[in-house]
Amino acid sequence: MDYRVAVLMGSPTDSDKMAPAATTLERYGIEADVRIMSAHRSPDLVSEFVSGARAAGYQAIICGAGMAAHLAGAAAAHTTLPVVGVPLSGSAINGWDSLLATVQMPKGIPVATVAVDGSMNAALLVVQMLAVFDSNLVLQLEEHRAEMVPK
Amino acid sequence: MDYRVAVLMGSPTDSDKMAPAATTLERYGIEADVRIMSAHRSPDLVSEFVSGARAAGYQAIICGAGMAAHLAGAAAAHTTLPVVGVPLSGSAINGWDSLLATVQMPKGIPVATVAVDGSMNAALLVVQMLAVFDSNLVLQLEEHRAEMVPK
Amino acid sequence: MDYRVAVLMGSPTDSDKMAPAATTLERYGIEADVRIMSAHRSPDLVSEFVSGARAAGYQAIICGAGMAAHLAGAAAAHTTLPVVGVPLSGSAINGWDSLLATVQMPKGIPVATVAVDGSMNAALLVVQMLAVFDSNLVLQLEEHRAEMVPK
Amino acid sequence: MDYRVAVLMGSPTDSDKMAPAATTLERYGIEADVRIMSAHRSPDLVSEFVSGARAAGYQAIICGAGMAAHLAGAAAAHTTLPVVGVPLSGSAINGWDSLLATVQMPKGIPVATVAVDGSMNAALLVVQMLAVFDSNLVLQLEEHRAEMVPK
Amino acid sequence: MDYRVAVLMGSPTDSDKMAPAATTLERYGIEADVRIMSAHRSPDLVSEFVSGARAAGYQAIICGAGMAAHLAGAAAAHTTLPVVGVPLSGSAINGWDSLLATVQMPKGIPVATVAVDGSMNAALLVVQMLAVFDSNLVLQLEEHRAEMVPK
Amino acid sequence: MDYRVAVLMGSPTDSDKMAPAATTLERYGIEADVRIMSAHRSPDLVSEFVSGARAAGYQAIICGAGMAAHLAGAAAAHTTLPVVGVPLSGSAINGWDSLLATVQMPKGIPVATVAVDGSMNAALLVVQMLAVFDSNLVLQLEEHRAEMVPK
Amino acid sequence: MDYRVAVLMGSPTDSDKMAPAATTLERYGIEADVRIMSAHRSPDLVSEFVSGARAAGYQAIICGAGMAAHLAGAAAAHTTLPVVGVPLSGSAINGWDSLLATVQMPKGIPVATVAVDGSMNAALLVVQMLAVFDSNLVLQLEEHRAEMVPK
Amino acid sequence: MDYRVAVLMGSPTDSDKMAPAATTLERYGIEADVRIMSAHRSPDLVSEFVSGARAAGYQAIICGAGMAAHLAGAAAAHTTLPVVGVPLSGSAINGWDSLLATVQMPKGIPVATVAVDGSMNAALLVVQMLAVFDSNLVLQLEEHRAEMVPK
Repeated sequence: MDYRVAVLMGSPTDSDKMAPAATTLERYGIEADVRIMSAHRSPDLVSEFVSGARAAGYQAIICGAGMAAHLAGAAAAHTTLPVVGVPLSGSAINGWDSLLATVQMPKGIPVATVAVDGSMNAALLVVQMLAVFDSNLVLQLEEHRAEMVPK
Repeated sequence: MDYRVAVLMGSPTDSDKMAPAATTLERYGIEADVRIMSAHRSPDLVSEFVSGARAAGYQAIICGAGMAAHLAGAAAAHTTLPVVGVPLSGSAINGWDSLLATVQMPKGIPVATVAVDGSMNAALLVVQMLAVFDSNLVLQLEEHRAEMVPK
Repeated sequence: MDYRVAVLMGSPTDSDKMAPAATTLERYGIEADVRIMSAHRSPDLVSEFVSGARAAGYQAIICGAGMAAHLAGAAAAHTTLPVVGVPLSGSAINGWDSLLATVQMPKGIPVATVAVDGSMNAALLVVQMLAVFDSNLVLQLEEHRAEMVPK
Repeated sequence: MDYRVAVLMGSPTDSDKMAPAATTLERYGIEADVRIMSAHRSPDLVSEFVSGARAAGYQAIICGAGMAAHLAGAAAAHTTLPVVGVPLSGSAINGWDSLLATVQMPKGIPVATVAVDGSMNAALLVVQMLAVFDSNLVLQLEEHRAEMVPK
Repeated sequence: MDYRVAVLMGSPTDSDKMAPAATTLERYGIEADVRIMSAHRSPDLVSEFVSGARAAGYQAIICGAGMAAHLAGAAAAHTTLPVVGVPLSGSAINGWDSLLATVQMPKGIPVATVAVDGSMNAALLVVQMLAVFDSNLVLQLEEHRAEMVPK
Repeated sequence: MDYRVAVLMGSPTDSDKMAPAATTLERYGIEADVRIMSAHRSPDLVSEFVSGARAAGYQAIICGAGMAAHLAGAAAAHTTLPVVGVPLSGSAINGWDSLLATVQMPKGIPVATVAVDGSMNAALLVVQMLAVFDSNLVLQLEEHRAEMVPK
Repeated sequence: MDYRVAVLMGSPTDSDKMAPAATTLERYGIEADVRIMSAHRSPDLVSEFVSGARAAGYQAIICGAGMAAHLAGAAAAHTTLPVVGVPLSGSAINGWDSLLATVQMPKGIPVATVAVDGSMNAALLVVQMLAVFDSNLVLQLEEHRAEMVPK
Repeated sequence: MDYRVAVLMGSPTDSDKMAPAATTLERYGIEADVRIMSAHRSPDLVSEFVSGARAAGYQAIICGAGMAAHLAGAAAAHTTLPVVGVPLSGSAINGWDSLLATVQMPKGIPVATVAVDGSMNAALLVVQMLAVFDSNLVLQLEEHRAEMVPK
């Protein structure tokens, strides 16, 4: 099966911090569709894209944002696809703002939050979700983990 | 002139904490239109209402929300009317989450943030905005301040 | 298809805070297997149970823990199934300790973290993961969301 | 109509962080009157200037300050004009001190607080306040927002 | 010699928390002049009172305030008498806001800050200052300390 | 009268951050006796020096320390002279640790705490204490403040 | 062999929170010598007691204190016996102050810090230290752990 | 007697921060066995190594880890040897995450936590534990402390 995951970020300046998400998805043969869109500066683009994401063949959405990081929450509000949030550091209130704004979602609309700047883990989490029904991905995950054992 | 201010909150459980906003606006003869809508559970309602707010005759929007408080930011993303954010306490991460999620907005989309649970001040801030062009409101503000001098 | 999700918690005193996880899973017809096991007081039970979880037919693991909340991370270390972490409040360092100990996982081993005490959302996140390949769950999620619109 | 906004800061060393406030106001054809005055080292200058600001033709006051940032609160205490506070980073307690000292104002005396180091948004907030009664500013805000959509 | 110390607080609701300041001063035979005045709601009263305090025979000023606690800083800005600040708890951001707003004063204008809700220690600090030139107070301090040895 | 103030610090590496204390005292003609002694690595030296400080002609003690900054508290425990604490930054928990360890003193043993790294203000606070009974110092303080008005 | 451990606390009001330390030591047949002494209010008692503790037959010292919790650090400064610190909650800055003041010790003088209010674990840590050379204690620890497995 | 202490760290990138632990142990003639193993990426290695550590002749285990620092807790869960935890800085949530994840252990399983990045003190703490039954180590500790007196 072909998988397709959207990797959204609020600003082009987030590209470096979010790059490991796409790289990691591609290692698993998953299409990573990287797009810049902001919950605050292009909110209609976010709601339109995310509302149509399931129909457009996406299995999950990864969102990276800093400061009052609303991107993941805004995405989660418009879809029942799994949304993974990556809080990004960079402001004076370094990572605390984006972490709390991403993880403290109200009842009903979860965001699967990973560590501050943890874009690689966001991708791995999506792979693990897909691997629930794909034993080939399970094997790849196990190989990848074996490589990551520190020496 | 007749003024009209929307007072939005994400959940009916926020009513008590937000009540001083409406009470204060009404003291100044300003219509307070209190509505429950959630950036996460009814996002399209928020964008639709806020996008049309200027045309519908509102001069400002007050938003109260807790936890990953996106309501004010979501409103600010859909209008150029002034948006005042009231971070609400109540979660385990008591007020820190809603404060940072409300105030740390990115460049371009400001939210005028007041103190945690500061709904009365949100209303006063709106009155002060309107009073820039309304000397009658200035007089009322001065009287109100005189009453508030502690003794 | 029949689904089976483990709901683990470190102590029987966490039962009330974790109850919404099982209740929510059951609403969707998903078996919730609630078990008490501690990353610190019964670590071998955790590694044994979690290591065998995929083979035993589980699709996901939800872990609730407080303080230096290692349960979700310990589970994630022993499986490539998706692990959802629920930081629990209750210590003097109320929720900050469990949130950071759950979400700040190192590269390679993600934990999908939800809000402090957010056990209902942990279950919904699992449902959303399963719904990627189950359109019937998508419908149920949409109905559930419609019910949760605040009025 | 001609608009005039005071941009106050506690120290000449805050100039770089506050420069976007004046630049942004000027883009909208609003006079930005930048002045150095300190709530602690020249308090009488602050109270004298601010007390007379409405009569002197100002529509709003923007205040940037770091550490125990009292400037915005001190200004707000002396006028019923809208006061916008910009917490500045730079101390060891980086931005947390100025944020809390600016936003946590008591009942009766609001300060419209923006993000730490958010001087551009302080100016935009003032423009949005003025635009309530000036449709030309509304158009300019809409153009500005369109420019800011990330690509 | 007769000593006279002003004990200022921003609101009558702070009376209970500040009461130990007066009680402690009186134990040492020092006149405690307790007054309610607010840096934000009666700023001119604060500047007028504090500016004249040395001439009026006061040796020190104790200020208790909560939230964005400016009272001590505002007093310190208007006098070269020693100003002791007592950060008061009570907001959602419990004591962190008042502590940082009191202690993080800029260069030139110190506030002698004591613990959150530490009004008794504020009085003892003043007694210790006066005791530098008063050996009778030294003896009283030593007796008081002897009483306070825990058993 | 001749004044003498001890400026203590826990480590020679604190010298740069504490230098403004001595410089400022000397501007006022006050002898600054700078000594390196640690509450943890030379505790008996601290208790011996501080216990004898009043008899040795000191009027106040300034203590700068970082991390679990006990120096000011240890000094305060051994004298009824005023003790001024300067929390120093430099650890990973940058300034929060030293601030809380310095200011949160228990009932009975106050430490007059200034801002993190605020050694100049520590000296000014001592000058203000001495000026209570020395009108010449008052004049010097007023001149100094006039110089510090920002322009 | 007979073991003897000092359990020190700064105030009689800490007794309830520290009681599990003595109870736990006694379960292992270790004498718990509970004493009230304060790093700030009876510092000489602390230094005298602790300096003589090894000669008096103690193997370890447990210290519980709140706020600017110096007791463990002060003890550690006067002995090379292992010192275990228990940060106690109870102030407005609930547990953060005592945790940082206990754990952030400078190079050379360690304090073995346990969780906020973790007096039972302080005792267990001491038992584990003694068990390094006492296989009987190892057996007791293993039995105790078996009892604590949650069910 | 010959002593042997394991110094574990989660990643080779932690080597520099942990180096003082081994250096310090060696100064006391104690064998430091430095190993890289991760609670998350090689959990079975950790449980296997730690479970057998007492039988293999180790007297204590020092663990350094950053972020959601589980290594010390995971070690403590598998042995009744004393485990010393060194929280490491380096993430955006600089040291707060690793400190809380290390120190806030639940009842029954203590970790002796030292300061963030305090690897030298971790070693000294182990020496102090061993010195309880070794008067030669006591002498060495006293010499070492004498060297560390700041001048």
